[in-house]
Amino acid sequence: MIALSAVARHEIDDALNVALDRLRIRSAALGEASAALGEATVASATGGKRLRPALVVAAFEAFGGDIGRSPGLWRVAAAFELLHAAFVVHDDLIDGDIERRGIPNVVGRFRERALARGGDAADANLLGAAAAVLAGDLLLFEATRLIATAPVTASQRAALFVLLDDAVLVSAAGELADVEQTIGADLPPTDSLIRTARDKTAFYSFQAPLAAGALLAGASDDERAALESAGSAIGVAFQLADDLIGTFGSRAEAGREPGADLRASKRTPLIAMAAETEYWPRIASALAMAPTGPIAIAHAQRELAASGARERAVEMITDTLRSARGHAADAALPRDAVVLLATLASAVEDRIPR
Amino acid sequence: MIALSAVARHEIDDALNVALDRLRIRSAALGEASAALGEATVASATGGKRLRPALVVAAFEAFGGDIGRSPGLWRVAAAFELLHAAFVVHDDLIDGDIERRGIPNVVGRFRERALARGGDAADANLLGAAAAVLAGDLLLFEATRLIATAPVTASQRAALFVLLDDAVLVSAAGELADVEQTIGADLPPTDSLIRTARDKTAFYSFQAPLAAGALLAGASDDERAALESAGSAIGVAFQLADDLIGTFGSRAEAGREPGADLRASKRTPLIAMAAETEYWPRIASALAMAPTGPIAIAHAQRELAASGARERAVEMITDTLRSARGHAADAALPRDAVVLLATLASAVEDRIPR
Repeated sequence: MIALSAVARHEIDDALNVALDRLRIRSAALGEASAALGEATVASATGGKRLRPALVVAAFEAFGGDIGRSPGLWRVAAAFELLHAAFVVHDDLIDGDIERRGIPNVVGRFRERALARGGDAADANLLGAAAAVLAGDLLLFEATRLIATAPVTASQRAALFVLLDDAVLVSAAGELADVEQTIGADLPPTDSLIRTARDKTAFYSFQAPLAAGALLAGASDDERAALESAGSAIGVAFQLADDLIGTFGSRAEAGREPGADLRASKRTPLIAMAAETEYWPRIASALAMAPTGPIAIAHAQRELAASGARERAVEMITDTLRSARGHAADAALPRDAVVLLATLASAVEDRIPR
Repeated sequence: MIALSAVARHEIDDALNVALDRLRIRSAALGEASAALGEATVASATGGKRLRPALVVAAFEAFGGDIGRSPGLWRVAAAFELLHAAFVVHDDLIDGDIERRGIPNVVGRFRERALARGGDAADANLLGAAAAVLAGDLLLFEATRLIATAPVTASQRAALFVLLDDAVLVSAAGELADVEQTIGADLPPTDSLIRTARDKTAFYSFQAPLAAGALLAGASDDERAALESAGSAIGVAFQLADDLIGTFGSRAEAGREPGADLRASKRTPLIAMAAETEYWPRIASALAMAPTGPIAIAHAQRELAASGARERAVEMITDTLRSARGHAADAALPRDAVVLLATLASAVEDRIPR
C-alpha cells in the first residue's frame, strides 16, 4: 500500500531479522521441543507484507522525521509486525485454522509433530493448541521488549507504551467481540460489527503504527489526534473492503477460494446491511445454502448484489475514506502527511472488487 | 514461605491493585464483553499467595536494599505476580481446566457466558478458549509494561529485561515439554522430567524473582549467579515436593482430593523413579487402575512407597536443597541472603508429606 525507500525497507527487514534470529537461536539452546517452537514462531512472523512497520516509517517521514538519525525507529517498526504476528497466531488458534497462506501454521505444524511422535488426534489437538498459545506469547513479549529497550527518549518510551497498551487492550476487546458475534441466532447490528472491525484490526494495524511514527518524529498532540482519527477510518474502510473481497472477489483478488466468507457463513457488516433490506428472507435462504458449493455461492453473491447491500458497502467505504481525508484537511497536517493519508485511502479504494 | 514486613506486604498489594484496577476500568470502557474479560482477568490474578513478589522484595532486602528508597521495587514485584497469573491462565487453557481453587477460571466463566447467550457446547468451548488466550495476553503484557515503565535506572531496566526475556522463553520451553511428555507410550526419563519442572516453574517462580530483587539492590554479578543457582535448586525441590503432595498428601496438605496426580495419571519424576525399580510391573498395573477411585489410589500409593520411589524422591529433595545451601555458602553471600535461602529451603522441606 505504501512505497518506502529501499533503505527503509532494508532497515525494517534488518530489525525484524535480528529479533527473529535471536529468538530462533535462544529457543534452540533450550532443547529440541523448544527449537521446534522457535522455528514455528519465526515462520509465523515471516513472509507477511510488513504493512504495519511501513506505516510507522511512512508516518515518521511524513512528520519530518529523518530516518538517518533515529536509531529507535526500526525497532519500533519491527515491534508492530511482531505484535501483528502474535495476534494472527492467537487468532488462528481461536478460529481453529491450521494453515496460513497455504502452509501449516503453528497449530498445524505441532499437530503433525504430535502425530509423528505416536500421538492420537486428541494429542494433536492438545500439542497444536499449546504451541500456538506459547508462540503468540513469545511474539507478544518480543514486540513489547523491542519497544521497552529501543533507543528512544524516556518520554517517547512512555508515549509508545500508552499506545501499545491501548493496542493490546482494544485488539483483545475486538477479538472477543468477534467471537461472541458468532454465537446465538441473531445477526448483530451493522454498527456493532463495524465497531468490532475497528477494535480488532483498525486500531493496531493503522491507527497505532501511524501514531507511533508521528510521535517519534515529534508531531504535536493535535496532529497525532487527527492522524489517529484518519488512520482509524482508513483501517475500518480497509476491513470493509476486505469483506467485499472475501464475498465477491475473484481468486486473484482474494488469494484464496472466491466467496470464502460466504462459505464460512461469516457475519460481516455487509451481511448485516443486507439484513436491513426487504430482500433479507431471500438472501438468508441463499446464504444458508452457500456452504454447499460454488453454485450456491454464486447465487448468494447475486442476491446480495441485487439487494443493494454490495453497493451500500462500497458507499460506506467511500464515505469512511472521505471522512479520513477530512480529518487530514481539518487539522492542517503537514503536506506530506496529507499525501500519505490520501495514498492510503486510494490504495483501499483500489482494493474494492469491481 | 517468607515473612515480609506489613509495610512490604501492603506495598506489593497496592502495586498489584493499581495495575488490576486500571485493567478493570479500561476494559469496562470498551464494551460489555470487554468488561467481562477485564473482570475475569483481574479475578485470575487475585487471591494467590503472592510468593513471587515476596521473593523479589526479600532478595532486595537481603542484599541491603532499602525498601523506603526504591519506588520501582513494587512494580517489579507486582510484575512477577502478573507473569505468574498469565502463565496460570494459559496453562489452565492448555490443560483443559475450567476451575481454579474451586471456582470457575477464565475458561469456565466464559463457557458459562456462551451458554447463557444461547450458545451450544461448541460455542462454549470456543468462547472459553478465546477469553483465556486473551486474558493471558493482557496479563503478560501488563507484567511487561510494569517493568518497562517502572522508575528504575536504564541499566536496571536493561538487566530486568534480560531476566524477563529468559523467564518468558524458558517457561514456554518448559510448558511445551510438559505437554509433549504426556504424548506417546514411553515414560520420559527422570532427568527430562526434572528439567521440565525447572524450566516450566522453577525459573520464573524462584530464580528470576530472587535475581530481580538482588539486581535492584545492587548485588554483584557473582552474587546474583550464586543466588540464581540456589533459587533454581529450591524451585526444583519445591516442585518435587509438590509432586509428593499431589501423590501422597492429605486433603489438608493438597488443598484438593488426595492423590489427584495419580487420578490424572500425571507423569512426574516420582513416577519415573519408580519405573527404574524392579517393582515397576506391579506399580504400572496399580497406576493404570488409579483413575478408577480412592481404593485404587490408596493401592497405588502403597506400591509406590514399597518400591522405595517415595523415599528416593524425598532424598532428591534433600540433596537438591543441600546444593542450594552450598551455592549460598560457596559464594560468600551476605548473611541475610544466606538466611533467606535457608528459610526457603526449610519451608520446602516442611511441605514434604510425612
